[in-house]
Amino acid sequence: MIIVMKQNYSKENFKNVINVIEGLGLTAHLSKGEHTTLIGVVGDKRALLKENPELLPDVDRVIQVSETYKLANKKFKTEPTVIDVDGVKIGGDNFVIMAGPCAVESHDQLLETANAAKAGGAQILRGGAYKPRTSPYSFQGLEEEGLKYMAEAREATGLKIITEVTSEHALEAAVKYVDIIQIGARNMQNFELLKEAGRINKPVMLKRGLSATIDEWLNAAEYIMSEGNEDVILCERGIRTFETSTRNTLDISAVPVLRSKTHLPIIVDPSHASGVRAYISPLSKAAVAVDADGLMIEIHPCPEKALSDGAQSLNPEAFNELTAELRPFISLVGRKF
Amino acid sequence: MIIVMKQNYSKENFKNVINVIEGLGLTAHLSKGEHTTLIGVVGDKRALLKENPELLPDVDRVIQVSETYKLANKKFKTEPTVIDVDGVKIGGDNFVIMAGPCAVESHDQLLETANAAKAGGAQILRGGAYKPRTSPYSFQGLEEEGLKYMAEAREATGLKIITEVTSEHALEAAVKYVDIIQIGARNMQNFELLKEAGRINKPVMLKRGLSATIDEWLNAAEYIMSEGNEDVILCERGIRTFETSTRNTLDISAVPVLRSKTHLPIIVDPSHASGVRAYISPLSKAAVAVDADGLMIEIHPCPEKALSDGAQSLNPEAFNELTAELRPFISLVGRKF
Amino acid sequence: MIIVMKQNYSKENFKNVINVIEGLGLTAHLSKGEHTTLIGVVGDKRALLKENPELLPDVDRVIQVSETYKLANKKFKTEPTVIDVDGVKIGGDNFVIMAGPCAVESHDQLLETANAAKAGGAQILRGGAYKPRTSPYSFQGLEEEGLKYMAEAREATGLKIITEVTSEHALEAAVKYVDIIQIGARNMQNFELLKEAGRINKPVMLKRGLSATIDEWLNAAEYIMSEGNEDVILCERGIRTFETSTRNTLDISAVPVLRSKTHLPIIVDPSHASGVRAYISPLSKAAVAVDADGLMIEIHPCPEKALSDGAQSLNPEAFNELTAELRPFISLVGRKF
Amino acid sequence: MIIVMKQNYSKENFKNVINVIEGLGLTAHLSKGEHTTLIGVVGDKRALLKENPELLPDVDRVIQVSETYKLANKKFKTEPTVIDVDGVKIGGDNFVIMAGPCAVESHDQLLETANAAKAGGAQILRGGAYKPRTSPYSFQGLEEEGLKYMAEAREATGLKIITEVTSEHALEAAVKYVDIIQIGARNMQNFELLKEAGRINKPVMLKRGLSATIDEWLNAAEYIMSEGNEDVILCERGIRTFETSTRNTLDISAVPVLRSKTHLPIIVDPSHASGVRAYISPLSKAAVAVDADGLMIEIHPCPEKALSDGAQSLNPEAFNELTAELRPFISLVGRKF
Repeated sequence: MIIVMKQNYSKENFKNVINVIEGLGLTAHLSKGEHTTLIGVVGDKRALLKENPELLPDVDRVIQVSETYKLANKKFKTEPTVIDVDGVKIGGDNFVIMAGPCAVESHDQLLETANAAKAGGAQILRGGAYKPRTSPYSFQGLEEEGLKYMAEAREATGLKIITEVTSEHALEAAVKYVDIIQIGARNMQNFELLKEAGRINKPVMLKRGLSATIDEWLNAAEYIMSEGNEDVILCERGIRTFETSTRNTLDISAVPVLRSKTHLPIIVDPSHASGVRAYISPLSKAAVAVDADGLMIEIHPCPEKALSDGAQSLNPEAFNELTAELRPFISLVGRKF
Repeated sequence: MIIVMKQNYSKENFKNVINVIEGLGLTAHLSKGEHTTLIGVVGDKRALLKENPELLPDVDRVIQVSETYKLANKKFKTEPTVIDVDGVKIGGDNFVIMAGPCAVESHDQLLETANAAKAGGAQILRGGAYKPRTSPYSFQGLEEEGLKYMAEAREATGLKIITEVTSEHALEAAVKYVDIIQIGARNMQNFELLKEAGRINKPVMLKRGLSATIDEWLNAAEYIMSEGNEDVILCERGIRTFETSTRNTLDISAVPVLRSKTHLPIIVDPSHASGVRAYISPLSKAAVAVDADGLMIEIHPCPEKALSDGAQSLNPEAFNELTAELRPFISLVGRKF
Repeated sequence: MIIVMKQNYSKENFKNVINVIEGLGLTAHLSKGEHTTLIGVVGDKRALLKENPELLPDVDRVIQVSETYKLANKKFKTEPTVIDVDGVKIGGDNFVIMAGPCAVESHDQLLETANAAKAGGAQILRGGAYKPRTSPYSFQGLEEEGLKYMAEAREATGLKIITEVTSEHALEAAVKYVDIIQIGARNMQNFELLKEAGRINKPVMLKRGLSATIDEWLNAAEYIMSEGNEDVILCERGIRTFETSTRNTLDISAVPVLRSKTHLPIIVDPSHASGVRAYISPLSKAAVAVDADGLMIEIHPCPEKALSDGAQSLNPEAFNELTAELRPFISLVGRKF
Repeated sequence: MIIVMKQNYSKENFKNVINVIEGLGLTAHLSKGEHTTLIGVVGDKRALLKENPELLPDVDRVIQVSETYKLANKKFKTEPTVIDVDGVKIGGDNFVIMAGPCAVESHDQLLETANAAKAGGAQILRGGAYKPRTSPYSFQGLEEEGLKYMAEAREATGLKIITEVTSEHALEAAVKYVDIIQIGARNMQNFELLKEAGRINKPVMLKRGLSATIDEWLNAAEYIMSEGNEDVILCERGIRTFETSTRNTLDISAVPVLRSKTHLPIIVDPSHASGVRAYISPLSKAAVAVDADGLMIEIHPCPEKALSDGAQSLNPEAFNELTAELRPFISLVGRKF
């Protein structure tokens, strides 16, 4: 942490800053220039977080040099995390595809989709039972009934299952049925939900918020991990920009950036990122090539009848074609699928 | 709603689109050009929301012409909403200032701040008991204890009180103590929380999400209103952009845009928008001039000791000075303060 | 400037960094923590700009603490700059309004608009002779013919005149006719044009780029000033965000931010920022209240026939009404109009 | 084009809109709903661009359904454009790499880099002789001297050469020396320069502006093409967002979006997009996988001594390694390299 003093600071206020730093058991290193005086502060960052050095008299501003997240930080755990979901590995040299409908609509729709997912090579079935929708008049999900259909689909196909929760109440219900809990973009900073998810004993997939920086995202993961649950998967799903030809802008660079900052596994969701069926195949190939650990893909037995997000869903044939196209890319990066 | 057909659509698929529209009891109007064929759809938008016409074969895309929110829409209630909080009016010709600390820290800190708020002319005391913080290692709020201090401060000063809730659990607790419930930027699309807030009988102030469009914001208000609680106040607090010299970018135009779209009252929060104490006074004047219904301002008896967001808090003298500077602007726009 | 070393840097590489710094006649101050080692560098920033310390072995990154612009910097000239355009002052306690059509279309249109501008209290007539248009098939401006009409309008009304230039060729022509040269948002980083504008002896109004940070904007101003022309006016005209209900997002905070960083005068353009006629009056009031030095407003005798940007133009009556509404606000901030 | 009428439009104004449309030889199709009345307009868009139907009385707004660019539009030329630069093909089944230093610094530096570029498999040498730099105090380029070194490097290696021009003056000089003219992000809407580039008989590579939408970018290409030069190459180099861990955000989706809208070839520049050496290899692979036609990569014999952008430059060994890693990906997508 670096403290930048104001240009015409008083000696007294300067001493005061030093006293505050040293009073906390930290060390201050000075750097005086003609126009700028800096104080480098050395010590445990978490203690400092509860103080506000930038409010001390004659302090101009404070620059954070190191990260505030610790458990998610690669500096403190250099080996990549591989999460074992009952035999299905996320991370390491496995490439995992999570596929399924945006929303669970009926027993038959889900089972049909699950079979298509399995046939295409997916290892995990996604399906929304609690849907976060912009308008209250849109379809909101089947809730617990949907979870039951998911459990039946797992029974029938052997696929692991993942579902999004949008509240503590939904989390409580979902944890009884599914293998992985998903926290969506709109809830990335629903800190109470994150803490609850930190207290369960199932992996959590955390999607990036619509305008979250990578550092905020890793701090959100830290919320889950600091409660005891270190099985966190990160999912890049596009950020909001001024560009309108795609629903969001897939930040493909997030994958190598995350690789350099964290040991957690990384999934890419090209369906939500682009919102356009025709772009899913090229973006999936890009995700494989950039070394993501897996993909989340929307499929639907009959996209033109889907109750939500059909425009970006693939039908079973298209999904099959997609994974066939992806296989040589996955081999090339040295992963198993 | 306008449906744009693909360039080389088949007659059959075109007929199918028409049949779907008419099957729902809606009317289709055609417009065929050399390169583009459009179908204007007339009827109740909410029924259409559950269908996905853009997935019909040979449909290129669908353009929404009118809004999906109804209760929040000025078209359906042209008169401005004035919310009466036990005698304090929000909206109409009253100008209201909500002031207080970012976080409630202690009984004394809050009481001292409440007195300063009252002395400066504020009618409502703000204070955070449940704090949404980026890092789990930052101070998280006093929770119910903080709510009690707030109720005591109301007792002592006569100010009405507002607090942010970050979960259904917090909402349940807060509704027993405070006069207005606040839902913060990070929870603007925490739809479960919005629905719960729609079932209480106290006003709700809904802050704009960090990257929410105005339409999404009004749809979030619609979530609250559609559950029965029509006393919603909107609060602009800055959006996320690439500019880094302010914490967020205050979208001052949101005020006239909202005026043209909704009847709900509008508050501006220059403290969170800018993150810099020195910018609060000019931005507050701008908010008055642009015809906002009020301001939310952070104050602290001793900002350099504040446990959160001190850099943007005013001390009692500065708050007093601010309201003194604002009074002639408030008079000029024809409001009472 | 602060140099952050990589976590496991070698002694040798560390020494090398110190040698490079000292070899340039600068001073290095060390700050070693458990996880992070920093080097504060003290000396003339401009010399450093030509070196790349972040490329030295084992350097993690470099943090810029102070600004790279000097002539535009308030630290080096604390008194506000007032520009005298042949008797019309921009800055100081004068409030200036520049009004006129987006594009000069004909002699009569311009003269009629100039009379309306004058009647409403404008002191400067704007008018575009060279139009930067997104599509090559849109109207591109009357070029030199338009400049002549502007000069005639000045003759007839006594208003000073400003026009945008989009190339060195246009600059050469315009400087012969107009009182102020405008460089538009799309050319804010057309550095060759900036340098040319730095060699003329007329004031230059520099609009902010669509996604320029305030620091980049001030560096662009520095390009003009470093060539000898210190009469630069800054014009905020909205930045690009994800919000679509206004054409751009007026960054009203830019005014106080600029006040804290530079001595140059600041104009606000609510017409281009919002793109919607109905929002111009509230945004103009906000600009006055936030202490801008003036406004640029689009007017047109007959906006529904304007060849460009008519949707945001005011007709003469509306402009008259606008300035009447603004007068009490301008008085309140202690300015003359 | 669709015209949306205001809610309470008058019959007279409605008739007027119809008259205007039909007066231009276009056809109007009506669609009247309970709350909204639409008019579909059919006919030549370019004629309409010079009119402003949204300014007609009682018109609420106008929605553009089709694109304003024509020569760049895939609808009007479905076959992909392949540009032949003296034997080197850009587009089709060739994969092209343009490599070289950000700035030409000396004869020896350039020649050494050219040899490295060639050794690694690049077919085109990039090098900046005119540098657009944020600060006027940064190194600005060797100008014509740099162009001469480039021509010498071509002589020595057989590589084709590309350089950026930042003004009409620079274009005039560069066209005498280089094989491809580059127009950079900051000049994407320098329309005068685009028009000049449309009058030369060499290919032009047009980089996307920092906050340009894809439609604006294609309109900028249209500026060049409408002057007669149809050999335009598009280069995605990242857009500006709130994310700070990369210099810009590479919009990888731009590649499939462009493929669906235009026939022009597409290059990706991961060096400028990310600004970080370590991210260039994964992003290059993503670009190959997403089916870009080529890459632009910064290399430097000694990046730690580069006068500009060294932090993102690869040294000769790293470049060699990069292309070795890319070869199997390039083969996999069925291209030659």
